[in-house]
Amino acid sequence: MTAAEQRLFPDWEVSRWFNTDTPLSLAGLRGQVVLVEAFQMLCPGCVSQALPLAGKVHQMYGNQGLAVVGLHTVFEHHEAMQPHALEAFLYEYKIRFPVGVDRPLEHSPLPATMLRWQLQGTPSTLLIDKAGRLRAHHFGSIDELELGVVLGRLLAEDGGAIPASGSLDHAGEGGNCSPAACPAPQGST
Amino acid sequence: MTAAEQRLFPDWEVSRWFNTDTPLSLAGLRGQVVLVEAFQMLCPGCVSQALPLAGKVHQMYGNQGLAVVGLHTVFEHHEAMQPHALEAFLYEYKIRFPVGVDRPLEHSPLPATMLRWQLQGTPSTLLIDKAGRLRAHHFGSIDELELGVVLGRLLAEDGGAIPASGSLDHAGEGGNCSPAACPAPQGST
Amino acid sequence: MTAAEQRLFPDWEVSRWFNTDTPLSLAGLRGQVVLVEAFQMLCPGCVSQALPLAGKVHQMYGNQGLAVVGLHTVFEHHEAMQPHALEAFLYEYKIRFPVGVDRPLEHSPLPATMLRWQLQGTPSTLLIDKAGRLRAHHFGSIDELELGVVLGRLLAEDGGAIPASGSLDHAGEGGNCSPAACPAPQGST
Amino acid sequence: MTAAEQRLFPDWEVSRWFNTDTPLSLAGLRGQVVLVEAFQMLCPGCVSQALPLAGKVHQMYGNQGLAVVGLHTVFEHHEAMQPHALEAFLYEYKIRFPVGVDRPLEHSPLPATMLRWQLQGTPSTLLIDKAGRLRAHHFGSIDELELGVVLGRLLAEDGGAIPASGSLDHAGEGGNCSPAACPAPQGST
Repeated sequence: MTAAEQRLFPDWEVSRWFNTDTPLSLAGLRGQVVLVEAFQMLCPGCVSQALPLAGKVHQMYGNQGLAVVGLHTVFEHHEAMQPHALEAFLYEYKIRFPVGVDRPLEHSPLPATMLRWQLQGTPSTLLIDKAGRLRAHHFGSIDELELGVVLGRLLAEDGGAIPASGSLDHAGEGGNCSPAACPAPQGST
Repeated sequence: MTAAEQRLFPDWEVSRWFNTDTPLSLAGLRGQVVLVEAFQMLCPGCVSQALPLAGKVHQMYGNQGLAVVGLHTVFEHHEAMQPHALEAFLYEYKIRFPVGVDRPLEHSPLPATMLRWQLQGTPSTLLIDKAGRLRAHHFGSIDELELGVVLGRLLAEDGGAIPASGSLDHAGEGGNCSPAACPAPQGST
Repeated sequence: MTAAEQRLFPDWEVSRWFNTDTPLSLAGLRGQVVLVEAFQMLCPGCVSQALPLAGKVHQMYGNQGLAVVGLHTVFEHHEAMQPHALEAFLYEYKIRFPVGVDRPLEHSPLPATMLRWQLQGTPSTLLIDKAGRLRAHHFGSIDELELGVVLGRLLAEDGGAIPASGSLDHAGEGGNCSPAACPAPQGST
Repeated sequence: MTAAEQRLFPDWEVSRWFNTDTPLSLAGLRGQVVLVEAFQMLCPGCVSQALPLAGKVHQMYGNQGLAVVGLHTVFEHHEAMQPHALEAFLYEYKIRFPVGVDRPLEHSPLPATMLRWQLQGTPSTLLIDKAGRLRAHHFGSIDELELGVVLGRLLAEDGGAIPASGSLDHAGEGGNCSPAACPAPQGST
């Protein structure tokens, strides 16, 4: 890690929030790992991959020290992606985590945060650690296992709890071999 | 974590190895996180889900302090899953990580390690930490994100390295929106 | 088939077309099998399943006597799904087949064709035979095999050509077992 | 179609049957469309793609004039794929359609039918029409839509019934937009 990366990552600039009663800031989320998903509602890769994965992370780890925040970084088709359209999109796609609208600029097709963070496009996924430093920055689709490993490492920093034995233990359908598993004969173990 | 879980996890009992020149033991792998995948070659859930995921973990993290070991725990259809059949299976399915044959017992359909570890069936996935303690034990299919988070936590213990910024950064196809991503206009960032 | 179903199916009412230089009509497509995909750009099932499948049908059979036509039947979130937004959507999702905008009505949230055809919602898939009669009408996602069988039957009516032997023969990667296939030893057949 | 293809396709040579009380022959299935799936139990593409698709065809169309027959054409790893192993495989993978063992030959690694039919490897899918003529022959994985279209055409020959309107109509979950569909407002159509 270079010295530059150890600095605090600059905050977003948001003109309107959805799915939260109060505006959010990276500063206010200090102490949590933050996953920022920068997206556009008409970006196919965002809709099919990045947003569902962000929603899954939110659902599984949202109350375990990990904050998921969407950022609507519109840089094309501005007319078609105004906030009222985003609101309908979030409703129909059942996106529950907080989403901010990256502040539009008068003289640039790219919005304010996208410029500040030098994002390459959408989807862009950023991981900020508990101390407010950028630790991963990815443009495009993300492998789920790889994202999990990085999240696990970041959550473990600074005293993050370790799961006890059996934390993965939610499966095991009884009977003969199911598509998922073959149970051993009863009474045998 | 209970006291019982903090004890060393007992080793496997293997009658024959594939994909390794020397026999392996949990004791010999101390210092690495170990993922043990107990499977049967005629178990559909093992073939379609557990073994491909174990192979992916091996390929992505096998040289980063994580050992993946397969254990062929035959408890049914013994005739059809003898070692010569397993060898053909491993070859055709391109399974590259070490696989041990759980030692068959004369008076039990279940093999020795399966009994010792009280496995419920196949696939069973066990995670052993760098200190040799069992930390997760799961029967059935595993969510990839969840497995990643647990692996990331275990890898981070005892001084495991943290990935630098950009560790996820292998995407970004140029041009217009691809199925995966929409790049921003050139020169704009 | 009842007598009612043997009547000509009434045409759509479209206020604007995309992906075609001239307006289309069912009457003008007589002699071809027509697949009509009624959708909304903010309907998740349309985006993830129905439109990709319609696009696949168009690509594979569009020049073999089968016409695929999209119909944008907006019945909710009207503000967010105006034609200029649809145009951006069709561009980013690379939808190439002709798409008509179902004519909006002043006093109904449902547009004109949707009312006339009594559609239940989106996606709705309608199959019209070469003689202009409705032969299948489905609301929701469609099984690909099942759609293929119905299309094959409809295409075969009235002298539709039968594929010669080998029409499926586009696979066969050489070498050892690939994920898709195991070739027999060379010279053996 | 060439003259050669209009001849009757020669029958298989089977040494043992599973999932049927009486031996089958192409001659005895005349009047039905026959899908023959030539496979090996240790062929990954057969297990992950060809056999599930054949099973789906059997389940959906098995009582509608279409016969699905598996043929175990072992040409490698003969020791590991003996009939007792195949029996365990069919049981665990819940394969319900009839499966014949292609008769092994003493002086050839390839079995009798595989040689006679000049199969390139596994999976190989053959479609025989109601009159006993080979109409499609494919080595490798098959696109589900494409298979459906060919099956639909073959089923429609010689007076095959045409599905009535609504034959695809098994979906439509009520309520708001589900992942699959958006229903229109109640009472609106």
